[in-house]
Amino acid sequence: MKSVFYSRFFILLPWVLIVIIMIDVDTKRSSVRNTAQFYLSRLGNAQRHERPALPVKNRTALPVIYAITPTYSRAVQKAELTRLSNTFRQVPQFHWIVVEDSSPRTELVSRFLARCGVPYTHLNIFTPRRFKRTGMPRATEQRNNALSWLRQHRSLKDAGVVFFADDDNTYSLELFEEMRSTRRVAVWPVGLVGGRRYERPLVEKGKVVGWYTGWRADRPFAIDMAGFAVNLRVILSNPRAQFKRRGAKPGMQESDFLKQITKVEDLEPKANNCTKVLVWHTRTEKVNLGNEPKHHQDTVHIEV
Amino acid sequence: MKSVFYSRFFILLPWVLIVIIMIDVDTKRSSVRNTAQFYLSRLGNAQRHERPALPVKNRTALPVIYAITPTYSRAVQKAELTRLSNTFRQVPQFHWIVVEDSSPRTELVSRFLARCGVPYTHLNIFTPRRFKRTGMPRATEQRNNALSWLRQHRSLKDAGVVFFADDDNTYSLELFEEMRSTRRVAVWPVGLVGGRRYERPLVEKGKVVGWYTGWRADRPFAIDMAGFAVNLRVILSNPRAQFKRRGAKPGMQESDFLKQITKVEDLEPKANNCTKVLVWHTRTEKVNLGNEPKHHQDTVHIEV
Repeated sequence: MKSVFYSRFFILLPWVLIVIIMIDVDTKRSSVRNTAQFYLSRLGNAQRHERPALPVKNRTALPVIYAITPTYSRAVQKAELTRLSNTFRQVPQFHWIVVEDSSPRTELVSRFLARCGVPYTHLNIFTPRRFKRTGMPRATEQRNNALSWLRQHRSLKDAGVVFFADDDNTYSLELFEEMRSTRRVAVWPVGLVGGRRYERPLVEKGKVVGWYTGWRADRPFAIDMAGFAVNLRVILSNPRAQFKRRGAKPGMQESDFLKQITKVEDLEPKANNCTKVLVWHTRTEKVNLGNEPKHHQDTVHIEV
Repeated sequence: MKSVFYSRFFILLPWVLIVIIMIDVDTKRSSVRNTAQFYLSRLGNAQRHERPALPVKNRTALPVIYAITPTYSRAVQKAELTRLSNTFRQVPQFHWIVVEDSSPRTELVSRFLARCGVPYTHLNIFTPRRFKRTGMPRATEQRNNALSWLRQHRSLKDAGVVFFADDDNTYSLELFEEMRSTRRVAVWPVGLVGGRRYERPLVEKGKVVGWYTGWRADRPFAIDMAGFAVNLRVILSNPRAQFKRRGAKPGMQESDFLKQITKVEDLEPKANNCTKVLVWHTRTEKVNLGNEPKHHQDTVHIEV
């Protein structure tokens, strides 16, 4: 009698254990569930093919954020890209479009992207020398190149939001959750820009009615590149909208672009009616290389 | 005979399953193993108390990295702390000791830390005005304050590594995995410092034998604050070791501190024998606030 009891106990105990493990894992521990499923599917009958390790249903329902980052070769480039990737890595459903001002693509950026842990597309287009003068808008060709890529590789079926993420700004994670619900064009404040602590769209009854700015308040859209996002559908259904090189005046890049795709009264204010700073227009100091030896003196070559 | 075979099979199968799950999870899936341990401990006899949901054995076996960050009030402060926390949030077993140069602690930093998602301790100590002159070492009081806190709140039983993480540098995640195995004092290269692309300890046969530096190569430890880490035991068993204010010469802070606790020949080279740059001495530009209105003109108060 006793031995029957023990044998039943030892038959049932492990099964109970396995069932508890399977039931009790909540969504936060989805990797656990996937691992369990993986082991069961190796042994079991129902599921023959292996499941992917991480992304699950809820995630793919979110629109993808396409962050367009123009970048160019300089001493701080890898450092900037490193801290940017440290932020972007934590944003779900994120696609990083990095566009180098270079021909061909550099090995440094290629190697970096391959190891950065962020889903990415690596593009490049060289800015002609005649456009590289002070007062001329920067990164025009790179941003347009990224827009072309989106128009070629994405369709109206793809849910997405497009954002221009320069490589030296500072981004809070909250910013990406705010912009993700962009239906056409969304706007929000930007810190440390225009010679002020912040600039922001002025909002009344949920509509943008003007701009708090320290500089050229007469601009149709007195906003920095880091201050808006555009739904992918808007980019695709305005196939000729792009950043202008010819006739562009200083500080008018954003306005020239936005007036091709929206009107001020249609803008969607984010970040609590444009009262929270979630992105900062930080600038990194140019590096002093005054003590760099003219000829290579170290015994090894080291990438910085 | 057949029934005996089946009963044995059904007794053994689930145990085999569980054993496979337990063995086959590698270190990367430590959360899986932890969950399994959690369920076993709930059912088992040996361990009566429940384990915390996530960080378990493997994690707590890692030494804690104590990053000491002096910070002071300025336009870019919140931006800097934001991108720093975006990096630190991804480092397991991490404790951020933030020391404000302020009396009392500011609301901005308090609010920020409470929401940043990184385990932290918030300290403050005001630097007397007479020490705030050019050429004088900076953040001395703040770093010493953090060392005192460690000596008061941690004991030789606690496994830890102490690192001085200024708030404007750039850190790769790899750096923290390198420094975690520090037994006494570990060193590695730093990018964009000393007027060069990088500085580094020169290593021969696993020992530091000199310094590749563009500036004052005669320093006993020609290394930047971001270029070394110290085991917590060393900090605790040298209770008088600290950064010096009196008699400190420019650029000698690191050497003055390190010579109290170690010798050059005892340094542990990290980052592939000091040939990889995993931290960059980036500097953020001072913000131009030239267009900031003298009197508050916006309708709301916005923290930047």
